[in-house]
Amino acid sequence: MKTPKTVVVGTMAFDSLETPFGKAERIVGGAATYIGLSASYYADGIQMVSVIGEDFPQEMMTDLEGRGLRLDGVEQREGEKSFFWSGRYHNDMNTRDTLDTQLNVLENFQPVVPDGDRDADFLMLGNLTPAVQMSVLEQMTNRPKLVVMDTMNFWMEVAMEELKAVLKKVDVLTINDEEARILSGEYSLVKAARKILTMGPKVLIIKKGEHGALLFNNKEVFFAPALPLEEVFDPTGAGDTFAGGFIGYLAASGDISFENMKRAIIYGSAMASFCVEKFGTERLQKLTKEEIDARVQQFIDLTQIEIAF
Amino acid sequence: MKTPKTVVVGTMAFDSLETPFGKAERIVGGAATYIGLSASYYADGIQMVSVIGEDFPQEMMTDLEGRGLRLDGVEQREGEKSFFWSGRYHNDMNTRDTLDTQLNVLENFQPVVPDGDRDADFLMLGNLTPAVQMSVLEQMTNRPKLVVMDTMNFWMEVAMEELKAVLKKVDVLTINDEEARILSGEYSLVKAARKILTMGPKVLIIKKGEHGALLFNNKEVFFAPALPLEEVFDPTGAGDTFAGGFIGYLAASGDISFENMKRAIIYGSAMASFCVEKFGTERLQKLTKEEIDARVQQFIDLTQIEIAF
Repeated sequence: MKTPKTVVVGTMAFDSLETPFGKAERIVGGAATYIGLSASYYADGIQMVSVIGEDFPQEMMTDLEGRGLRLDGVEQREGEKSFFWSGRYHNDMNTRDTLDTQLNVLENFQPVVPDGDRDADFLMLGNLTPAVQMSVLEQMTNRPKLVVMDTMNFWMEVAMEELKAVLKKVDVLTINDEEARILSGEYSLVKAARKILTMGPKVLIIKKGEHGALLFNNKEVFFAPALPLEEVFDPTGAGDTFAGGFIGYLAASGDISFENMKRAIIYGSAMASFCVEKFGTERLQKLTKEEIDARVQQFIDLTQIEIAF
Repeated sequence: MKTPKTVVVGTMAFDSLETPFGKAERIVGGAATYIGLSASYYADGIQMVSVIGEDFPQEMMTDLEGRGLRLDGVEQREGEKSFFWSGRYHNDMNTRDTLDTQLNVLENFQPVVPDGDRDADFLMLGNLTPAVQMSVLEQMTNRPKLVVMDTMNFWMEVAMEELKAVLKKVDVLTINDEEARILSGEYSLVKAARKILTMGPKVLIIKKGEHGALLFNNKEVFFAPALPLEEVFDPTGAGDTFAGGFIGYLAASGDISFENMKRAIIYGSAMASFCVEKFGTERLQKLTKEEIDARVQQFIDLTQIEIAF
């Protein structure tokens, strides 16, 4: 089956990371990189829309193309540098300090969806300035079948109105528990979800890191656990990898029912569980179908029971 | 079916509580109270072993007997006061400050298991001084089929050696994530579990409050989610209620396989989800089988999926 047209918009960047397990200097990261890699295990021919500097490694571009991702939506700017982020994780891996952010090419990023992909069925808006996310939505000639949006607390502080305008136009929002509380003003995640589901999205995913993820629509709730791991080596990109697995699985199956979204968040969680096992994208660049299936089976075994009343 | 003989040892006490939702003054609490009430929905004729002062309300004793709990193991001391604890919960309900602790009758509590129950099949050691837990184990004429033990970080600080001695003699240990980390010296819960499972218990339950509970043996892991609730009104007793549902379900079924323990932690989680809906034991004193079954079904719906590879 040919995958419906899918577009992923987001950053492709360099990260320098410190975790309790070690350091990595200027490795490739960025939301779109993680989303695209993760989704590529399910969906074919995904169009990547991003911007990179002349410093972005050609080997990574070759790898991404090798995984079936289309890169004609990735603008490479001569004489400029790629977006750079540096951070240090605390012992619990749930909190981190930003040490440095260099916007570089991201400063005036104006994403252009290639003509042939403006009628895409699936659109993933990675975390970016809400105005930039909006400009992508406006380029689409048809309303996509499914728009999934990621964002972060920073935009809630500096661009809440623009963020709310984008929210009105998306189907699925993925945020973490802290962000859900900020966006809704509610502490209880059930109340937060109810409120956020009046702001535009029909489906809300609340990512709780090592505590799993909740999937809400206005009638139902589903929970995907995180796999208890020996070590979380580097959590960078886990949320994006989760989102990539989610939209990739949905696009590949063409089924956007809530029931299928339940499966999709298990697949997303499985991909995220691989992501954190190594620094950066390393683990995501060479998974096999057997490894993924075995991991998904572990997720199933973790929660599935039979109870007869 | 007659339930195998079951003994619950722990405190029966007064609590004064402050939560973001209000205050409750000197309401009945205590580990054994919560454990017994919760277990009484599954198992018959559970023997309670505890100590109370002359201030303990007769109505509660009548209620407990009405729920089929046997109270001849509860020593009531004339002229003395019941154990009293007072605490204040923070906004997130996961942390609390102890405002006051009055040991009273607990100061020299020497639990006596009634003669007819010293050959019990199921023994639940609620959180108490490890030496007191040990004295109960030593009163048993036969090794029970299953010994479940709860404890807390305080004993890890002041009585680690005694605690380790008791650990050697129990089958299932229930502690929270922070306690698992302290007991094992490992941050990763997977590593913590592996280490704790060499210390005596064959099964470890790590309670993560609103983030669910993990069940480990030396080969498998299972996860029971917590139900996403509108409000957690008062978390006091939730862990004991969980343990009570767990051992009550196991005792009632007589099946202590790991597979059945998976079901038992879902039942325990369901009971805990009721507990937190009101102050103290209120919600646990008048549940119906229909309410419990419906709640367990909610837990099942929360995580069950079908995935075909």
